[in-house]
Amino acid sequence: MPDTLSEATRSEFDRDTSVRLREPGVHDADLSPGWAIGHALNGGYLLAVLGRALGKTLPHPDPFTVTAHYLSATAAGPAVVRSETARAGRTLSTGTASLFQTGADGEEAERIRVLATYGDLGALGDDVRTSAKPPIMPPREQCFSAQDYPAGPDATPEISKRLDLRLDPATCGWAVGAPSGRGEMRGWLGLADGRDADPLSLLMAVDALPPTAFELGLSGWVPTVELTVHVRARPAPGPLRVCVTTANLAGGFLEEDVQIWDSADRLVTQSRQLARAKLD
Amino acid sequence: MPDTLSEATRSEFDRDTSVRLREPGVHDADLSPGWAIGHALNGGYLLAVLGRALGKTLPHPDPFTVTAHYLSATAAGPAVVRSETARAGRTLSTGTASLFQTGADGEEAERIRVLATYGDLGALGDDVRTSAKPPIMPPREQCFSAQDYPAGPDATPEISKRLDLRLDPATCGWAVGAPSGRGEMRGWLGLADGRDADPLSLLMAVDALPPTAFELGLSGWVPTVELTVHVRARPAPGPLRVCVTTANLAGGFLEEDVQIWDSADRLVTQSRQLARAKLD
Repeated sequence: MPDTLSEATRSEFDRDTSVRLREPGVHDADLSPGWAIGHALNGGYLLAVLGRALGKTLPHPDPFTVTAHYLSATAAGPAVVRSETARAGRTLSTGTASLFQTGADGEEAERIRVLATYGDLGALGDDVRTSAKPPIMPPREQCFSAQDYPAGPDATPEISKRLDLRLDPATCGWAVGAPSGRGEMRGWLGLADGRDADPLSLLMAVDALPPTAFELGLSGWVPTVELTVHVRARPAPGPLRVCVTTANLAGGFLEEDVQIWDSADRLVTQSRQLARAKLD
Repeated sequence: MPDTLSEATRSEFDRDTSVRLREPGVHDADLSPGWAIGHALNGGYLLAVLGRALGKTLPHPDPFTVTAHYLSATAAGPAVVRSETARAGRTLSTGTASLFQTGADGEEAERIRVLATYGDLGALGDDVRTSAKPPIMPPREQCFSAQDYPAGPDATPEISKRLDLRLDPATCGWAVGAPSGRGEMRGWLGLADGRDADPLSLLMAVDALPPTAFELGLSGWVPTVELTVHVRARPAPGPLRVCVTTANLAGGFLEEDVQIWDSADRLVTQSRQLARAKLD
């Protein structure tokens, strides 16, 4: 796949996460404001940019386990990703990647640091022993989209225009001022342009739903400290089901645990993030 | 606390995870064979060594979220940990640490790479909204220790002598050739020398129980690819309850999800690891 942009043939997601090789291990990116939530770019979108750059540096194609620590707020615009291989093995390879932006002072500031192990999902056996059950939720057409948002679709974050997200009404109480008090968020998720999910877009998908903190009655910003994603299988075409749960909000921090199921009822991704909560 | 050893006043755990400052960001360690399982050193023990060294480099004392990728097998004996600060903020600081050993060829080989964010657990508010429930398991005296192992305590791994581990009989079927088929392992955990748990020993505790894979009917080695630990609170004195669950064994990989509860019924740690399974 060429590194140059080919907008006619690429989805919004592919275009906006594309990176250009500057020199070995160094990729330039142009971060799109289309994935913003307020002034901040979505952490999952940024992880996909880092994941794409790291995948071009490591000898294996697919992210198996990716951890990101979010160091400072990333703005839309130019960025550079510096990647390094820590170990290249036969079936797995491990490396780091850091996203930098040049600040107002002309200095490069590190925004995000990633440590990840890649492999080849296509090379895995097809044995599956899963005791986890797909979420029970209403069919897609009975779920809420950004169009249904009480304050109107213009009040939803910019990223919502990139996504085809339909939230389970049972986890939408927050949108009408009646949060359930349960740390749960569930929805059907696709890309608005119809592009099917792949391992790279799963890195974005784990961070695409509104924070569970909203259903816990908190309304403030919930910045991610750390996010770890395990991609366990290539997703089948079709919409994903994304379930997020929070069991422990304590001392101003909470975890968000994510399962992503594909249209073939396969658990394709597990992730957990540690986030800070602004307590009311 | 001095970096020199003071065996008279330290526990086995403190002695065996101690590090000596060589120069800023570089610590020497002497890895103890006392934490071995077969020929390999326990990944949680090694994480505690790395966590101690990184904690001496970063400005904050406690591990909040620590991710380790295990690159190559670590042997007992000398090792060096090189740490680096990525960002030092007011409430959180982030850094990396790598453990190296000198191979037979005289070259330094990287064994483990860590990316972590530290903070001050003592500075957190005491608000807790936890929906997770402590595990239901028999009292400690009704659980199985290494003394009860059918093949005798000498057949148990070396690490078992460092631990006061009492497994819930409901998750011990594997020890008598009758695994339950459920991906569950639960037990009461303390250190054999009576030292109480702290944030550093929790990094070890998340990896101290036998693999859930045993209860899934697998008997082979289950090497950790990646392990992420969230320490959410300082543990109260007394034994910990550790619950490990595996929901998804697929393509030769499985996750182990861990909750650790302290004697005050507080969820003090969550962790997840991605491991490789040798399928029978």
